[in-house]
Amino acid sequence: MKRNVSPPALTAPLTASTDIQPVAAGGLLDRRWFLTVGAGLVAAGTSALNGLAAPLEVPRHSRVPGRSFRPYGEPSAFAMPGLQRGLGQPYGDIAPGAGAAFTPLQALHGTITPASLHFERSHSGVPDIDPAQHQLVIHGLVKRPLVFSHDALLRYPMVSRTLFIECSGNSFFQTLPEAQQLPVGMLNGLLSCSEWTGVMLSTLLGEAGIDPKGRWLIAEGADAASMSRSIPLEKALDDVMVALYQNGEPIRPEQGFPMRLVLPGFEGNMSVKWLRRLKVTEGPAHTKDETSKYTDLLPDGKALQFTYVMGVKSVITRPSPKMTMGAPGFYEISGLAWSGAGRIRKVEVSADGGRSWAAAALQEPVLDRSVVRFRVPWRWDGTPVMLQSRATDEKGRVQEPRSAWSSRYAPGNRYHFNAIQTWRVDAKGEVTNAYV
Amino acid sequence: MKRNVSPPALTAPLTASTDIQPVAAGGLLDRRWFLTVGAGLVAAGTSALNGLAAPLEVPRHSRVPGRSFRPYGEPSAFAMPGLQRGLGQPYGDIAPGAGAAFTPLQALHGTITPASLHFERSHSGVPDIDPAQHQLVIHGLVKRPLVFSHDALLRYPMVSRTLFIECSGNSFFQTLPEAQQLPVGMLNGLLSCSEWTGVMLSTLLGEAGIDPKGRWLIAEGADAASMSRSIPLEKALDDVMVALYQNGEPIRPEQGFPMRLVLPGFEGNMSVKWLRRLKVTEGPAHTKDETSKYTDLLPDGKALQFTYVMGVKSVITRPSPKMTMGAPGFYEISGLAWSGAGRIRKVEVSADGGRSWAAAALQEPVLDRSVVRFRVPWRWDGTPVMLQSRATDEKGRVQEPRSAWSSRYAPGNRYHFNAIQTWRVDAKGEVTNAYV
Repeated sequence: MKRNVSPPALTAPLTASTDIQPVAAGGLLDRRWFLTVGAGLVAAGTSALNGLAAPLEVPRHSRVPGRSFRPYGEPSAFAMPGLQRGLGQPYGDIAPGAGAAFTPLQALHGTITPASLHFERSHSGVPDIDPAQHQLVIHGLVKRPLVFSHDALLRYPMVSRTLFIECSGNSFFQTLPEAQQLPVGMLNGLLSCSEWTGVMLSTLLGEAGIDPKGRWLIAEGADAASMSRSIPLEKALDDVMVALYQNGEPIRPEQGFPMRLVLPGFEGNMSVKWLRRLKVTEGPAHTKDETSKYTDLLPDGKALQFTYVMGVKSVITRPSPKMTMGAPGFYEISGLAWSGAGRIRKVEVSADGGRSWAAAALQEPVLDRSVVRFRVPWRWDGTPVMLQSRATDEKGRVQEPRSAWSSRYAPGNRYHFNAIQTWRVDAKGEVTNAYV
Repeated sequence: MKRNVSPPALTAPLTASTDIQPVAAGGLLDRRWFLTVGAGLVAAGTSALNGLAAPLEVPRHSRVPGRSFRPYGEPSAFAMPGLQRGLGQPYGDIAPGAGAAFTPLQALHGTITPASLHFERSHSGVPDIDPAQHQLVIHGLVKRPLVFSHDALLRYPMVSRTLFIECSGNSFFQTLPEAQQLPVGMLNGLLSCSEWTGVMLSTLLGEAGIDPKGRWLIAEGADAASMSRSIPLEKALDDVMVALYQNGEPIRPEQGFPMRLVLPGFEGNMSVKWLRRLKVTEGPAHTKDETSKYTDLLPDGKALQFTYVMGVKSVITRPSPKMTMGAPGFYEISGLAWSGAGRIRKVEVSADGGRSWAAAALQEPVLDRSVVRFRVPWRWDGTPVMLQSRATDEKGRVQEPRSAWSSRYAPGNRYHFNAIQTWRVDAKGEVTNAYV
């Protein structure tokens, strides 16, 4: 059953030509380099990764028919072990649905988060809602209180936008006094990105008619925690969506099925899931979810409320902590950047702990309040390095060093961490989370 | 346990103001209308969809904690019945993996197809490949034959692109002599769209070094059908990707795990799945998969080979066959458009069988060789209409009427159907596939 295939003589060389001069310390190469590697910039290397001198083997799966069709597919069993949300359940069995599930950023590439791996933060578990029984009510300071069935909402004009959602508690492990050795998904995976499709909230509020005294909106979820947040009417009328679809299909139970708010760029829990009620009011409600939680502790002992817009941020997803590098040679450094204030303008990468920087390539299209994938070619020479990324958004906001971020808060603050993060690569290739 | 919520007095009106003049026959409204509905263009209607006069009920799921976290999520059981790929297995139990699975376009919105619902066309089932055992060989007219392990490929520079893949046999039910009454997903669902991430083929061919005599590339899959296609070297060096990730996660088994080719805009089966071998040659191989199949039957009895670039095409996904409209009033007509030659420039919609047309709104960003979601506001007056969509791409190619498409082929041709499709809405609101 073997076929006549000429035996390949060499294997994939991963040695970048030493003719290419680094643009920053530690072997960082020009971001445009990867656009021209097909032109021969990758030299013929000598490191044989997989020698093969016999005729190409025909594996069993090429000789017998494979399995049949599935109506709804799932990942390969070989890939599945890495495709698991990390679970953070601080209350364990006492409150099994209170906590978070983290997107495994270390296993993903590109920009879209599969719905099955979108991060989840729930305060009292995931309700199982029959859309035929669910209603959305708009009331309070409106001219015409309204109730919408799910079916009715499906008839309204829709829009689609690719947007990140980030929990304001994301990266809280990075706010602890000592470096936590965890995968990048546990460190930063309360951040995901989806194509959301739904009805603009302005359309629905336009139908209800806002009383001139109305200035705020109280959004309430149908979960057992009645998760509730106050939203300035200005934002509600600007770009907020009542999302019904995520990455093409109806939104998942963990994401608020049958409907949730999506507030572009604002802290995650304002995008209220299982949306049940919107009340127009004169002032904010100061709900438990915006007073006892989701406030920033300041050095003077006060708590800063209503930090809506998520900071400019980036993180290197590969290499990242718990990974081990292979042999010295060519690698691509890759990660994600995002900002609650708009588009990412640039991302820089350092291999010497922030002394020198190389500009990263940004994957087009760079969208407003979506994540952007950045990449930098790198020739690792096998010596220890300190990898960092630093994002700048279109408003000119730049990620700060950890020390600058920390100085603005009390030591116990766990919210809105967006400082530069550092991964240490040692001489053995082991990658760890450095507390720099 | 009931809360004091003021009872809403009205329900969602879905009556577009009659002050708005249609822009085409059958009640089609200006595409910019939906941008201003929040400004009051939707009048206070009178159609009560869900009367509610009692205090807002607090459902059981708002009173008891929901279920706990899942490492890998799945859709709501309430949504799942609609989220099924339609199966086309012409050889039944004799060859259970030969046939196709269709994306249920009628159940989806936005532009991304979830990986679980991406269409599948397999010639001998889905092989179960261990990536640690899989190799990609590049040989033939090259300076250095190469073999790449999966791990080695993961170290190469990556790119991400959102691209459609369409089987050239898509819409073959529409080439039959009589109108088939099937959902739009069965009629047109061998078309899906994903964010693909992988290594540019030009990078790998650059490492192998092309012999000056090399003009073609033979790509072979590791399935039991050894699905093989000839690819012009010009395309291979231009924009072809060896894809490793789909919508963020490793590509699915049905999509070629652990690696597949993706040829932007070219007919689907050239994007060879379970990619095992690339041989550089002087000429095409004329494999069984490009001679006995995937050729276009012409009126003179000849078969046209190598129709690579998929035509400009669009289809209305809602309303669409097998759906039933509700009461007369406001609806949004929505669908997908795409072209193998580049970006979609415009989509027009007709409600009178092609006599008058209204311009549809195109959802930004409109990407090269991706699908675009189009939408048109519509005031249906309850009388019968004939809905059509017509796409134009940036090269100026326009969808033809069925008669013009048919005249270019023999009656038995089943490939490359991209004519205008017509959905009939009758006075009862039933939507059917019209053979116009």
